[in-house]
Amino acid sequence: MNSLLENINIPSDLRKLSTEQLQQVCAELRAFLIDTLSTYPGHFASSLGVIELTVAIHYVFNTPEDQLIWDVGHQAYGHKILTGRRDKFHTLRQLNGISGFPNPKESPYDSFLVGHASTSISAALGIAIGSVLKNETKQVIAVIGDGSLTGGLAFEGLNNASSHPNNMLIILNDNDMAIDNNVGGLSQYLVKLTTSAMYNKMRFKLYKALRKSKIATEENKGFLTRFSNSLKSLLSGQHNIFDGLNIRYFGPIDGHDIEGLVKVLSDLKNINGPKILHVKTIKGKGFKPAEESATEWHAPGKFNKNTGKRVIADTNGEPPLFQDVFGHTLVELADLDKRVVGITPAMPSGCSMTYLMDRFPERAFDVGIAESHAVTFAVGMAKEGFLPYCNVYSSFLQRAYDQVIHDAALQRSRIVLCLDRAGFVGEDGATHHGVFDLAALRPIPNLTIAAPMNEHELRNLMYTAHSHDCGTLGIRYPRGKGVMKKWHNEPQPIAIGKGAKLKEGNDIALISIGFIGNDAATAIQRAEEKGISVAHYSLLFLKPLDEELLHEIGRSFKKIITVENGVINGGMGSAALEFMSDNGYFPSVKRIGVPDRFVEHGTIAQLNTLCGMDVDGIYNAIVSHYSANM
Amino acid sequence: MNSLLENINIPSDLRKLSTEQLQQVCAELRAFLIDTLSTYPGHFASSLGVIELTVAIHYVFNTPEDQLIWDVGHQAYGHKILTGRRDKFHTLRQLNGISGFPNPKESPYDSFLVGHASTSISAALGIAIGSVLKNETKQVIAVIGDGSLTGGLAFEGLNNASSHPNNMLIILNDNDMAIDNNVGGLSQYLVKLTTSAMYNKMRFKLYKALRKSKIATEENKGFLTRFSNSLKSLLSGQHNIFDGLNIRYFGPIDGHDIEGLVKVLSDLKNINGPKILHVKTIKGKGFKPAEESATEWHAPGKFNKNTGKRVIADTNGEPPLFQDVFGHTLVELADLDKRVVGITPAMPSGCSMTYLMDRFPERAFDVGIAESHAVTFAVGMAKEGFLPYCNVYSSFLQRAYDQVIHDAALQRSRIVLCLDRAGFVGEDGATHHGVFDLAALRPIPNLTIAAPMNEHELRNLMYTAHSHDCGTLGIRYPRGKGVMKKWHNEPQPIAIGKGAKLKEGNDIALISIGFIGNDAATAIQRAEEKGISVAHYSLLFLKPLDEELLHEIGRSFKKIITVENGVINGGMGSAALEFMSDNGYFPSVKRIGVPDRFVEHGTIAQLNTLCGMDVDGIYNAIVSHYSANM
Repeated sequence: MNSLLENINIPSDLRKLSTEQLQQVCAELRAFLIDTLSTYPGHFASSLGVIELTVAIHYVFNTPEDQLIWDVGHQAYGHKILTGRRDKFHTLRQLNGISGFPNPKESPYDSFLVGHASTSISAALGIAIGSVLKNETKQVIAVIGDGSLTGGLAFEGLNNASSHPNNMLIILNDNDMAIDNNVGGLSQYLVKLTTSAMYNKMRFKLYKALRKSKIATEENKGFLTRFSNSLKSLLSGQHNIFDGLNIRYFGPIDGHDIEGLVKVLSDLKNINGPKILHVKTIKGKGFKPAEESATEWHAPGKFNKNTGKRVIADTNGEPPLFQDVFGHTLVELADLDKRVVGITPAMPSGCSMTYLMDRFPERAFDVGIAESHAVTFAVGMAKEGFLPYCNVYSSFLQRAYDQVIHDAALQRSRIVLCLDRAGFVGEDGATHHGVFDLAALRPIPNLTIAAPMNEHELRNLMYTAHSHDCGTLGIRYPRGKGVMKKWHNEPQPIAIGKGAKLKEGNDIALISIGFIGNDAATAIQRAEEKGISVAHYSLLFLKPLDEELLHEIGRSFKKIITVENGVINGGMGSAALEFMSDNGYFPSVKRIGVPDRFVEHGTIAQLNTLCGMDVDGIYNAIVSHYSANM
Repeated sequence: MNSLLENINIPSDLRKLSTEQLQQVCAELRAFLIDTLSTYPGHFASSLGVIELTVAIHYVFNTPEDQLIWDVGHQAYGHKILTGRRDKFHTLRQLNGISGFPNPKESPYDSFLVGHASTSISAALGIAIGSVLKNETKQVIAVIGDGSLTGGLAFEGLNNASSHPNNMLIILNDNDMAIDNNVGGLSQYLVKLTTSAMYNKMRFKLYKALRKSKIATEENKGFLTRFSNSLKSLLSGQHNIFDGLNIRYFGPIDGHDIEGLVKVLSDLKNINGPKILHVKTIKGKGFKPAEESATEWHAPGKFNKNTGKRVIADTNGEPPLFQDVFGHTLVELADLDKRVVGITPAMPSGCSMTYLMDRFPERAFDVGIAESHAVTFAVGMAKEGFLPYCNVYSSFLQRAYDQVIHDAALQRSRIVLCLDRAGFVGEDGATHHGVFDLAALRPIPNLTIAAPMNEHELRNLMYTAHSHDCGTLGIRYPRGKGVMKKWHNEPQPIAIGKGAKLKEGNDIALISIGFIGNDAATAIQRAEEKGISVAHYSLLFLKPLDEELLHEIGRSFKKIITVENGVINGGMGSAALEFMSDNGYFPSVKRIGVPDRFVEHGTIAQLNTLCGMDVDGIYNAIVSHYSANM
């Protein structure tokens, strides 16, 4: 059979095909995805699950004039392939390659930049209302997963959907999954909705017939909806939340029936007002192992597409992942102290809270994609004397900034914010780098902020949070591996606000915070070999600052270098400058960190190099700062 | 009649009374509130609306062991009076007086610190789940308004309400109001729910009877709920969102029928699982003018309790409120440019977007208490070529921190974030001061951040945003009056990133940003009279920095003072330090701003004095910095 996919460079090529040919397009697209992603890793199961939906949308709608917004966007690989990026698809998530998420800079078919969950309804609504205000008739489609729907922002969008005239179509991609299994009342609710599929199908057909026959009109649709909803409730024993919010609900329908999808989407094009189409899909559809274990296959890395075996590197004898150090240490603490509980907003696998879930299921709380709630809920549990370790990825904590200030810090609540994925996260790129946390949290009173340089320090910090009341404590640590094969120390309490002098030196004082201190130490060694004597101080705490250490540095050094894996505007280097200024020291300070621009995707190592934050970059900074006249 | 209120010092005194006496307590409490607030201003209509609810809750529940959380908390005045603070109530919102919001530091009856909306469900859920986990049986009650329910955080709480065992009671205080009229699908939905009051009453009685007779048990309650909900839907033509989220729904009931409230709350005490009681109240109840115009009487200032006339000071010939300058200028711009639209999260009166609503109703969007949505929605509209002026109070923008980074800045979206109430806001206190914005926004790439010193600069900035593409522009300005009687200039475009030298000087360079520059100018005058020559630079833009100006300062001055109405950790002073350090200048810098602690309530003037940020404070800093040895 001739390949259809090869001749689809943009969606208008797709639209030349007959509906009957679409199944073949889906099969080819699926094969292409599996083939490419087996060698060039990325998110996997999500995109497989929406192959038919992707093809159907681009077939029915007039993209890119019609605006299509993928919530989160890691399910948009098929979309990328159909919209001019098939040839570049193997560069996915690589430095200078195409992004793992939709990005308008990359393609006019990417209507909105996405990455964090739950933004699509608000964005689509802005576009849809704007479009109506301009008397345009373009279609605006948001595709949102049931996981993303648990985010408060999505609800705020839904609540506003009917306030101003618009024709937004929300497609609910319901696979009962976020990355892990979806949780919460809404999730259960969607399951119940699905049980009434038969009734809904009937109802939709009835409605279409009534429209055609002009019995149903725009004017009387309110009455008909109410009537039909009441009937449904009686029949199915449940109620429709979306109808309650004045959003017309259709579905659920089978998300892998391409012809059915095309038919329904074509019909919905002609229905005015905000509406939601509930589509049932299977994450990982078409690749057996992924269908059976979608969480594992969310982002599986390389794999053998024939055997379905993931290529798992032998990490025996290597340092552990920081996330696993967190996960195991949390279980140890929970064993030790009944007050310890774990809270995660939809990242139990990603942050390794799964260990706690296995060991103490009743003390582990996956609250869904709901970072704001996670923090305020943690403060609530702390009121009852519990000691919550709330694990939120650094870049997702931006979603809970007010809750950290207003609910946690202001009450000096004793909770531990464990910020995984701090610093560059690599391939996920600009939306996901955890580079703002230090600068954003530092201005907040009552907070204690720490960043471990290695696994022992992470364990000691987590232990200290249990043995000592630090108020609201933030611990930020990076994605990926640590540096210690023997990571499993006997945890010790740490003095709050105390750093360490790791190495003496005379010419320059280098102050680092956190994991990047390891690269700084290597750079210092290299500089020493060139005859430059560099003292190394590791701060551990950004807040409170180790004033004794900083006084020592201020008194002894005319040249200082600060090194952090975070934005330099307002970060640790800035804190050091403030301290020196406030205390009448006037050293020459060179700050190393993330510059004032958004950094795209690439490996963590590449991005560090790009920003002069790797060993070479730090070494060069030492040499040039040493040579500089003052 | 003897006063009952006088003998109620804590709720246990209240509980000694008979149910029949409660009506008198309510009347006295209402009179006390009206009397005190007519002279000592504060929030008004909200507390009047929940008098009966307040009395009923403290009568039925065993506070403070049972945990009571008021969402937002400005409706908790009656609660304060019944819980040991009657004698101090006249110190409300004054420096060293009691807070306008519940605060656990103030009273054990204040279970949770509140101020920002929509936190109560998450907080109560944390407490309620923790309580069950400890095998305790205390009651946990969240009282949340229908306005607060539009916030995404409230939905995240609701969505998690049924995930883990708990007995939380949510009381929905439904007056169809936020501060202004409530908006959104949910609001309309609640109105519809109310229309089925009769049915619900019947249903509740039926359920109680079934419980008593042991026909209804914990085991079969699911079935009975479904059955009864279906019946209701058929009867009332609508559906129940809360039941859909597995939260048992009761109501709506009359929130001013004290005996009815006591009865229902007593019954609900014995029903396990999360539940919501829908209570209909009238904002301002019992004070006619407030009942008729609740928005005006939200926080009316002083008034004559007999005539119902507000004491409105004659401001003729005085400078305008900054918010009105914003509001009028927005209308002018909307007149000039079709692309201009306004977006406010539930603060049309507070930010004066009401003027735009009157003039161009279809171009003004009140999205409810939903700051995150407001920003992402604005970005969506900008995609369609509109130019949204999104007005968010500075402290509420903390709710949209991720949206500013991830949706606006990363796409370099052309929207204008107008941050009203920046700096100290006075009587609302620690939860509401807009002091983190400069430090929190500065690290974000692509942002332009400005702070006008006066009305003309605000107008010019707003005008520049329309005439020139500044990307994502934040303009922060204070609460209260400006400084110009002739504020209505012909707006001029401003060069982005350019500040101004307001005054020459030799000894010290003072750099200010924004409105506080006016006090700095006065302090400088005073210093000049003492023979200290101070140059005054006003930055206007925090980002991008005016490098030319800063180079001039770096070259010319050994002593610098920075002045800002925001946190000094990471703020403008810190930016100046970074610049000087990066460019090899080593001046002695004294930074004036909000210190690293939460500042409580008081007048703005008092708080500025407290923090050394008033004319005296700045003057003293000039003198001491001038005298200091280097």
